[in-house]
Amino acid sequence: MVVRKRRVPEVVVKRLALYLRTLQQPGINEQGKYISSKELGKRAGVTPAQVRKDLALFGEFGKQGVGYEVKYLSEELRRILNAHRKINLALIGVGELGLAVSRYLIRKSAVERNYPFNLVALFDNDPTKIGQAVEGIPVLPPAELEAQVKEQKIRMAILAVPAEVAQEAADACIASGIKALLNFAPTKLHVPAQIRLQYSDVSLDLQQLGYHL
Amino acid sequence: MVVRKRRVPEVVVKRLALYLRTLQQPGINEQGKYISSKELGKRAGVTPAQVRKDLALFGEFGKQGVGYEVKYLSEELRRILNAHRKINLALIGVGELGLAVSRYLIRKSAVERNYPFNLVALFDNDPTKIGQAVEGIPVLPPAELEAQVKEQKIRMAILAVPAEVAQEAADACIASGIKALLNFAPTKLHVPAQIRLQYSDVSLDLQQLGYHL
Repeated sequence: MVVRKRRVPEVVVKRLALYLRTLQQPGINEQGKYISSKELGKRAGVTPAQVRKDLALFGEFGKQGVGYEVKYLSEELRRILNAHRKINLALIGVGELGLAVSRYLIRKSAVERNYPFNLVALFDNDPTKIGQAVEGIPVLPPAELEAQVKEQKIRMAILAVPAEVAQEAADACIASGIKALLNFAPTKLHVPAQIRLQYSDVSLDLQQLGYHL
Repeated sequence: MVVRKRRVPEVVVKRLALYLRTLQQPGINEQGKYISSKELGKRAGVTPAQVRKDLALFGEFGKQGVGYEVKYLSEELRRILNAHRKINLALIGVGELGLAVSRYLIRKSAVERNYPFNLVALFDNDPTKIGQAVEGIPVLPPAELEAQVKEQKIRMAILAVPAEVAQEAADACIASGIKALLNFAPTKLHVPAQIRLQYSDVSLDLQQLGYHL
């Protein structure tokens, strides 16, 4: 049984996602029904003690001296991460980056049966893009956002718009009922406390690396 | 004068990059020569106390009751982050994501005079891509990586290859003399301790958001 602690640090959530991915690697299942915290840690780049500590937050998954049952642990991690059922996504801004991310996600869920995200709607305000389709998903005008969010039960959105309009796009998503945002626009966004927000920013990533050179 | 502390936590480095970007926003300079920690914090989404604490690690930048001189602080941050001179980059894997990231970086450095990264070489092992060019930068075969790294003094590489070949690509970069890697491939990489490695992974970002839904 999974007991969900109220306040799990974001770094732990991130590692749980990493463990789940690691368990899904080809070859893991074939190596046996069980995986040790040592092996899981090695593949995920984490110490065995950290693996045990992270998983212990959610229950008793392992057997002393045997390890974790791969299939059971995968299922529990999927449940903890809300990855046991598909979450519907929208993407706003079908520029180059938006297009690349859309194609990646659409193909990913076509290939991986368990992939927990379904990109179901694309939006752009460029009239030349509206009506076009990416891998079968049509690009819609922003005016249709709210209706789509309701109709398709969209809960997360990816923002791939220019920085100048990112706040406006975020506001529109939130007003439409979206609860979580992944922001690729290189700018800080202000959102209500109950909205989850994550940034993905190649310039900041590079700059962080550059510090160490 | 900048005194560089030996061990600055990664979260601080990330915030410094965020402060620098914030100072470069249009409108900041026009508002006056100085910016308070309150205003800088507000724009960067950080508390004023955190701003002061982070900057104090590197020296005395502010004036009591006046704030930070925008131009001076920008220059110092650029220096701290090694962003005062251009760092040459290579990108490996000119698939959809690699192409989108390449275009973004090439255009960025064309538009922003101060943008600290210069994408100077692209690599792919697909014969149909080799010889083609992205915004004027030719796609080269992997065999030319080492010569290019030496000739163009490339210090960082972006990996946008499929997960299955990411480790191999990372190893080739490191063998060629590259010191820092930004990995977009959805897989864990193993690198020597002196190599800096950063991950950018849309599936993990989404999964981390999904936990909270």
